Amino acid sequence: MKEISSLQNELVKELVQLQEKSRVRKKKGLFLIEGQREIKLALEGGYSLKQLLFCAEIISQKELETLMEPYSTELPEIIHISLQVYQKLAHRKTTEGLLAVAISKTLGLQDLHLTNNCLVLVAEASEKPGNIGALLRTADAANLDAVIIANPKTDLFNPNIIRSSVGCIFTNQIATGSTEDILRLLKNKGIHIYTAALDDRSLPYQQMDYKKASAIVVGTEATGLSEEWMENSTQNVIIPMQGKIDSLNVSVSAAIIIFEAKRQRNFVQSKE
Amino acid sequence: MKEISSLQNELVKELVQLQEKSRVRKKKGLFLIEGQREIKLALEGGYSLKQLLFCAEIISQKELETLMEPYSTELPEIIHISLQVYQKLAHRKTTEGLLAVAISKTLGLQDLHLTNNCLVLVAEASEKPGNIGALLRTADAANLDAVIIANPKTDLFNPNIIRSSVGCIFTNQIATGSTEDILRLLKNKGIHIYTAALDDRSLPYQQMDYKKASAIVVGTEATGLSEEWMENSTQNVIIPMQGKIDSLNVSVSAAIIIFEAKRQRNFVQSKE
Repeated sequence: MKEISSLQNELVKELVQLQEKSRVRKKKGLFLIEGQREIKLALEGGYSLKQLLFCAEIISQKELETLMEPYSTELPEIIHISLQVYQKLAHRKTTEGLLAVAISKTLGLQDLHLTNNCLVLVAEASEKPGNIGALLRTADAANLDAVIIANPKTDLFNPNIIRSSVGCIFTNQIATGSTEDILRLLKNKGIHIYTAALDDRSLPYQQMDYKKASAIVVGTEATGLSEEWMENSTQNVIIPMQGKIDSLNVSVSAAIIIFEAKRQRNFVQSKE
Repeated sequence: MKEISSLQNELVKELVQLQEKSRVRKKKGLFLIEGQREIKLALEGGYSLKQLLFCAEIISQKELETLMEPYSTELPEIIHISLQVYQKLAHRKTTEGLLAVAISKTLGLQDLHLTNNCLVLVAEASEKPGNIGALLRTADAANLDAVIIANPKTDLFNPNIIRSSVGCIFTNQIATGSTEDILRLLKNKGIHIYTAALDDRSLPYQQMDYKKASAIVVGTEATGLSEEWMENSTQNVIIPMQGKIDSLNVSVSAAIIIFEAKRQRNFVQSKE
């Protein structure tokens, strides 16, 4: 088994680049995953691993084998790394001793599988990885059919997105695309488009019927949704704001509308 | 007008202590507010200021006077601070040049004014200031009658709570108390208690009737609600989780239940 104990090792330098640079992730088609749960969710979500790096001071090879047993047919190269190397690469406080290099997916709109009465979340251009992570957590809890990120400012394999999503980046069906392409897809599929907007053209969100195929579209906290979405939506919707501050966190707003849709559907999953 | 330009000034040292130490805030009955909007909301929320500190390099005295005009009867001592002092005390990126020393309120349960069909949020022991801030934002947007923090781990005038609440600490009616005292108050007032819990004694949240006086109670993400709440509630409620990860952010969970209650009430505010 390969062992790496020096921070000067070429692979370590490569992995730091994978963590820090979207450009390098895109060029190599690889990204780094930290944490046992996240790695398991990635494997369950159909991702392939290139390498598995474990720190024997934290997790024994025996424990590692037990953990990976359900996925043994897909097992990648296993590399033993020193505590020093692990601490250089790991960013979370809860130390689990395990990292993986995974092979990226393209996440194109053409790969999405959408049912006739699907419920989809579209988030436009969120610049904060933490916001995308929180949206993915909510989408997982609601078991949405898909999450689509419009005009993303970063690739979705950014370590901060993986971390803040607690692995829900792997449990949701995900795609990215331009606003134009997403609008075309939604319209071609006959999916109703409900755009969340603090706008006088908006109707209260709870008056909509979300039982048919629906996409709930949210913008950023700072600038809201672009005009292109507002003009092409089935209906702009608003959450009635009754306080002194007209502002909800974007993941909170999205959750309120998503779970109203789920309530109307009696929490029954959409079908083929 | 008093001017302070040195970091060695005694008042500057005192203010740093007010920011950093809950114990000092409690002892002095004072706390620090940063930002124009937050200071205005505090004044509108009935808080009194002891001192107003402005940095003339960022906000002119003229601008300051215009800003404070609506509150001129309550104007405190005004102190001109240097940019160096301001940068020492200010923590936000969006620099507005204004800080205030405000007089604390006791936030006791006995001061709460609760109507006959009130809608209240109770949050137990949230250890993360950011979580309390997010809950306060949601409570403001829903115009809840009150937010009660049970067994708080910090005083609520922690600068991180003020900041993450974007000033909603001042727009909500707030109190803190022990779980025992809060339970007694809610029961004495005949308020229904709905505790959010991932528990097999729970019913789906959307099946409850929130039109009568109701308290929605949430715990921490890490440990959930204490047994004392679960045993004394009208009903434990659960948000159906249909994903791979059974976990929603606590402020997202609270918002889903709060806005279901608001929906049932047709977004009509509770009355005397």
